Amino acid sequence: MNIQLLLTGNELMNGDIVDSNSAMIAQQLLELGLSINIKVTVGDNLTLLVEQLEQMSRSADLLLVNGGLGPTRDDMTAEALARLTGTSLREHPEALSHLTHWCQARGSNLTQANRKQALLPEKAQIIANSCGSAVGIRVEHNHCRILCTPGVPSELKAMLKQSIIPELKAQQSPEAGILLRRYHTFGLGESGLQQLISDRLADWPEEVELGFRAGAPTLEVKLQTPVTMAQTHEHWGQRLQQLIGDYIVAEGQGSLAQTLVELLTQKKKKITTAESCTGGLIAAMLTQIAGSSAIFESGYVTYSNSAKSKMIGVSPATLEQFGAVSEQVVREMATGALEQSGADYAIAVSGIAGPDGGSEEKPVGLVWLAWGDSTDIRSTSLYFPYGRRMFQTMVAGAGLDLVRRFACNINDTPRYITERQPRRTSL
Amino acid sequence: MNIQLLLTGNELMNGDIVDSNSAMIAQQLLELGLSINIKVTVGDNLTLLVEQLEQMSRSADLLLVNGGLGPTRDDMTAEALARLTGTSLREHPEALSHLTHWCQARGSNLTQANRKQALLPEKAQIIANSCGSAVGIRVEHNHCRILCTPGVPSELKAMLKQSIIPELKAQQSPEAGILLRRYHTFGLGESGLQQLISDRLADWPEEVELGFRAGAPTLEVKLQTPVTMAQTHEHWGQRLQQLIGDYIVAEGQGSLAQTLVELLTQKKKKITTAESCTGGLIAAMLTQIAGSSAIFESGYVTYSNSAKSKMIGVSPATLEQFGAVSEQVVREMATGALEQSGADYAIAVSGIAGPDGGSEEKPVGLVWLAWGDSTDIRSTSLYFPYGRRMFQTMVAGAGLDLVRRFACNINDTPRYITERQPRRTSL
Repeated sequence: MNIQLLLTGNELMNGDIVDSNSAMIAQQLLELGLSINIKVTVGDNLTLLVEQLEQMSRSADLLLVNGGLGPTRDDMTAEALARLTGTSLREHPEALSHLTHWCQARGSNLTQANRKQALLPEKAQIIANSCGSAVGIRVEHNHCRILCTPGVPSELKAMLKQSIIPELKAQQSPEAGILLRRYHTFGLGESGLQQLISDRLADWPEEVELGFRAGAPTLEVKLQTPVTMAQTHEHWGQRLQQLIGDYIVAEGQGSLAQTLVELLTQKKKKITTAESCTGGLIAAMLTQIAGSSAIFESGYVTYSNSAKSKMIGVSPATLEQFGAVSEQVVREMATGALEQSGADYAIAVSGIAGPDGGSEEKPVGLVWLAWGDSTDIRSTSLYFPYGRRMFQTMVAGAGLDLVRRFACNINDTPRYITERQPRRTSL
Repeated sequence: MNIQLLLTGNELMNGDIVDSNSAMIAQQLLELGLSINIKVTVGDNLTLLVEQLEQMSRSADLLLVNGGLGPTRDDMTAEALARLTGTSLREHPEALSHLTHWCQARGSNLTQANRKQALLPEKAQIIANSCGSAVGIRVEHNHCRILCTPGVPSELKAMLKQSIIPELKAQQSPEAGILLRRYHTFGLGESGLQQLISDRLADWPEEVELGFRAGAPTLEVKLQTPVTMAQTHEHWGQRLQQLIGDYIVAEGQGSLAQTLVELLTQKKKKITTAESCTGGLIAAMLTQIAGSSAIFESGYVTYSNSAKSKMIGVSPATLEQFGAVSEQVVREMATGALEQSGADYAIAVSGIAGPDGGSEEKPVGLVWLAWGDSTDIRSTSLYFPYGRRMFQTMVAGAGLDLVRRFACNINDTPRYITERQPRRTSL
């Protein structure tokens, strides 16, 4: 099936918004084994819109259109469809009924602007919208099925889920589907991971397509196999897991922070944070997860030296002798945070986020981390010379991952500890 | 000038990444008064790529191509250009020299894969890449200038800045440019702001185009005027500032957190944070700003009741009597954080982020905030029933904005304080 996607909206052309709708559509199609052949984006320009509809509908079997269904003058998808099909716009009774109910439910009157959303091309059918005023529109032209969806992401999402994906699924052969597996990894780079797979899993079969998506702080690895090869999918999924299992921090829709919250909840353990260079980001990542109150009670943002001493008892002498960014200081931060909070585990970080404050011995991008429990505090330096924001994100990720490894009793040293160190030119 | 944009990459078609490059390109063109007419995205498919290049180059004066310049088999922009122009690929001496230096500078050998990046269509010229291995490619076809740029955002950004934008600027009439002004506002919704402008600035001229971009936690308002109407631009910019000045938290590339850091730095004042429901996010937003150590020393993430008492001295009796989400508790949090930290200003927040933990009297989305200095602590409730993550972002934004208003002596109550309150059905 030749599927094409036409997006419309000035905000997509002038850089005001980044289009995330087409990724949402593509991901949902992918699970049915379907893909988009070509994607075209135009502004709110009637002539261009009609031209593209005509041209794309000639080669496509299915043309998905996104945007242009709203109440304002700029929204001209319905008008373009009328021109395309040589019909005129008229008030569609079902669409009007939807709009009337929509307004009633919100205690507002049906305005002229709303009423415009019920004006559809003569032969059009509607696609229900359960969470917005704009109905979707379906027409046929050039033997192509044209489905028009709203640009508001939440409305598009609902319409895909409730109407469009089920319709396509019913028409797809069950054998056309694909199996998907997503692993979120921390501490492996894309090229390093690709190399590792070519070296150690050299007979990786073509049918299991591997994809990588660099996020921050994690790297997602995607396995994609035809649904008819479930055993192959399972087998190579397992082999990959055996190869990089310790680096896998979450699967599917999960995240590193969520995995850690779930792990500590299961173990009935609590964690505390002592943060200098990340300034609260580790605590914020943990508490972004619903249910984190079961494992997190208090965190210490100790940005200055005096805060490190006053809040979590780092000795002024240690700060003086070794400097705030040092193994000794982060170890005292971790110990102090454990004592103050009564938590089971601690993570402490102190580093140089930049852009200023670096030296030859302690360059911008250097961080010391300490983590563990009251009987076993571990520590390491790491080096992330990537700019302030990315540095903070990677340090927070490393902190969460090191606690995850500790809580899981993974005792192998992760490769990022050996690989991500500043060059010691002076030694 | 008819400008078109062709993006290539399977990752753009299958939903693995969201395309932010085209927004970057569009924004930079906009400042020259140029806009993109149509944008087409295709996967790594040679036939489709050649077809699109041919078709688009027929109507465009300038065709920008993004992606497909890398070292792997999937990267086929150069090959497509050779087919398009009926030439063959050959090693381009300048490109090879760039690649050789690039590898030398990184202490690595020139691999066969790198060498592929020097294979360009016969008549092509290169566009320098100052921060990546892939050179850009320039060809002419169908009287259309085709400029090919790398898909890596940082490399694209540098190539735009160093080569493409200066070239276009030199060719543009200075009168074609536009004037842009961006205000970041906190606490006004898009529809409310639009209403306010229609009501109070009813004679707003068409030449000053108004645009809105909803961010979180701020809303950006963009004014865009032809460069020939500088006075009009200035006049209406000022009138808008008079109307909503107190809600403007930053201009241009700034942000709310950066404004607050700069403001407190000027005033030589320090701030501390006492966070329950935001779990460190306010501190993290402040410390994301370079130079924040001048105004921030310590923050208290007091997620549990006992942490509120132990770390910043909230009375257990107050917690017992009023509950953690109460005016009394956030006021004690603010006072306690000021005393413990020695900072000049404090912001304290405690709320119900959800999804659980709400009640009829204190629903999910309710938050209490207290802010001020040791002589003047103020407090309010707010209601953001938007889901956990958005709740935390909006509460953090409100916290920073309330301190900004306090530090600037803006004493009018912002409308979000009166508007964003839960409905008191039980009163």
